[in-house]
Amino acid sequence: MLIQELFGIELPVIQAPMAGVQGSALTIAVSNAGGLGSLPCAMLSTQALRTELETIQKETNKPFNVNFFCHTPPEESAQQEKKWREALSPFYDEYDIDQREIPQGPGRAAFNEDTAALLKEFKPAVVSFHFGLPTSKLVAEVHSWGAKVLSSATTVEEALWLEQQGVDGIIAQGLEAGGHRGIFLTDDINTQVGTFALLRQVVNAVKVPVIAAGGIADAAGVEAALALGAAGVQVGTAYLLCPEANTSKIHREALKSQAVDNTALTNLFSGGPARGIVNRVMQELGPMSTVTPAFPLATTAIAPLRAAAEAQGKGDFSPLWAGQNVTGCKEISAAQLTKELAKG
Amino acid sequence: MLIQELFGIELPVIQAPMAGVQGSALTIAVSNAGGLGSLPCAMLSTQALRTELETIQKETNKPFNVNFFCHTPPEESAQQEKKWREALSPFYDEYDIDQREIPQGPGRAAFNEDTAALLKEFKPAVVSFHFGLPTSKLVAEVHSWGAKVLSSATTVEEALWLEQQGVDGIIAQGLEAGGHRGIFLTDDINTQVGTFALLRQVVNAVKVPVIAAGGIADAAGVEAALALGAAGVQVGTAYLLCPEANTSKIHREALKSQAVDNTALTNLFSGGPARGIVNRVMQELGPMSTVTPAFPLATTAIAPLRAAAEAQGKGDFSPLWAGQNVTGCKEISAAQLTKELAKG
Repeated sequence: MLIQELFGIELPVIQAPMAGVQGSALTIAVSNAGGLGSLPCAMLSTQALRTELETIQKETNKPFNVNFFCHTPPEESAQQEKKWREALSPFYDEYDIDQREIPQGPGRAAFNEDTAALLKEFKPAVVSFHFGLPTSKLVAEVHSWGAKVLSSATTVEEALWLEQQGVDGIIAQGLEAGGHRGIFLTDDINTQVGTFALLRQVVNAVKVPVIAAGGIADAAGVEAALALGAAGVQVGTAYLLCPEANTSKIHREALKSQAVDNTALTNLFSGGPARGIVNRVMQELGPMSTVTPAFPLATTAIAPLRAAAEAQGKGDFSPLWAGQNVTGCKEISAAQLTKELAKG
Repeated sequence: MLIQELFGIELPVIQAPMAGVQGSALTIAVSNAGGLGSLPCAMLSTQALRTELETIQKETNKPFNVNFFCHTPPEESAQQEKKWREALSPFYDEYDIDQREIPQGPGRAAFNEDTAALLKEFKPAVVSFHFGLPTSKLVAEVHSWGAKVLSSATTVEEALWLEQQGVDGIIAQGLEAGGHRGIFLTDDINTQVGTFALLRQVVNAVKVPVIAAGGIADAAGVEAALALGAAGVQVGTAYLLCPEANTSKIHREALKSQAVDNTALTNLFSGGPARGIVNRVMQELGPMSTVTPAFPLATTAIAPLRAAAEAQGKGDFSPLWAGQNVTGCKEISAAQLTKELAKG
């Protein structure tokens, strides 16, 4: 079954939810163009989520996807936080930042009963999760209004686990993909494989529709994914330069520079592995580090450095999320991009 | 132009040359089946190379490929060798190996004038290189008998360089691929990207035919590569269990075990980054290490550990080369495998 049939949409393209660089404007544009627009909700307050959902329902009557994180919130470790701040301290000195005055960083709330209750008012057609799934009771709650439930798999084992929990589709997230890895059954990044390898293995292993993600940037990429047995694709990076995205000026400039040929998995910005353009802090402390606190706790201590550097026009401490194929990034409307991706 | 036309073969499949695990038997089987069989020559003496070429020409009149390394032989550094042996010394103690008695390890000769002269007697239809190209004089020498010259690119920059040097085709080696990375213009492994991302970018960047490698294990994979603009594919890992390959029993068992889900790039076996199944030495010293001498000098010091462990039936110090998709590995003849790959 192709995702057009699964979700009741026209084109085989899901716009990947990208927390921090987009809101409802991108969701609306993609859904109205016939793809499946997505709203990243992990960093939204309840009130902000309600406002975004109201906006989307006002601007489109097409299906859309809301995306949530469902990590288990980690216990805070004072010792680990100390190590992390020690590693950052030369940079604090450089930017004259007083460690004692660092405010709590932006949270990433895991999906819970309140979120489910709020969603039920709006009945979005698709709800996708990253880092596994919430409790089976919450998954049942989401299914209760007829929503399709998706989650990301980064290994065959994760795909089998998700299928057993009753998901309606699985996003096979290849190593090329930008942003956070959906990895949740292991923390060994050697298990993470490229889209060509992962997609085919997941398609062979499960019966539910599989959506390809990672390295897909044009119509040929969509065709290739379908040839490998995908039911559709999820594309993120290509949308980063669209006017409907909130991608910062620093991030946009990095995407248009030579620097974009060098991405890496890094845990410096949140504590969890995510792919971004290699910048100064990744070069000097990583890209992977053992001193960061668990996801998402690393964000707090690096946030003031990011703010201070960005104020000087520098992305040295910013997460410059990008996948390994940025050739699809174009400064065109999200509607046009969606149609170009699907024209194969 | 598809590789069938480029090489005068029937099927869009090149069997990847795999030094250490195959000889002419695999080459002959694949070429006779209609694909392009390859002979890895980097570890062959002049006499052994002559014998293999004679065998191939006796057993097939179809085109075949001979593959050479063309790295710049590094200067030996006593200091680096000392560091490397210090790192290995706990293992030497464990296996009662006297460091003073370690013989010179197997060499990997770079392509030179003598090799070109020998090849000229046999006039193979295709000569492929790994780690760039030999001098332009040697490339011209190979072209002189009408051979097609190929080399691997792991980045767009390398593909553009190879095109400028006059290669007849470029192998886009995605990060999924097993064995040695063909990387030669940089040593930054963050530049190495998945097949989905690399193949499409190389196809867009060059005019010569591009051959896809990495993560391709079945007919659907071949179709997907062609959809991305490839002129054909190069497949290695899938052939490792064929009876015509010399893959060791230890290596075959690892390929059939759960361990195969964990591969990584490691430089512990030669000094250069190569993808293999994670084993004990990779876990304890790597998988990437800064103490190894330059490629291929690391081989000597680890060789006696490999031999001692293998004598006990263990692959703890063996290079267990494999790509990220082993689902194509089958204990069937290489001819049948080649035909199955091409049946899409």
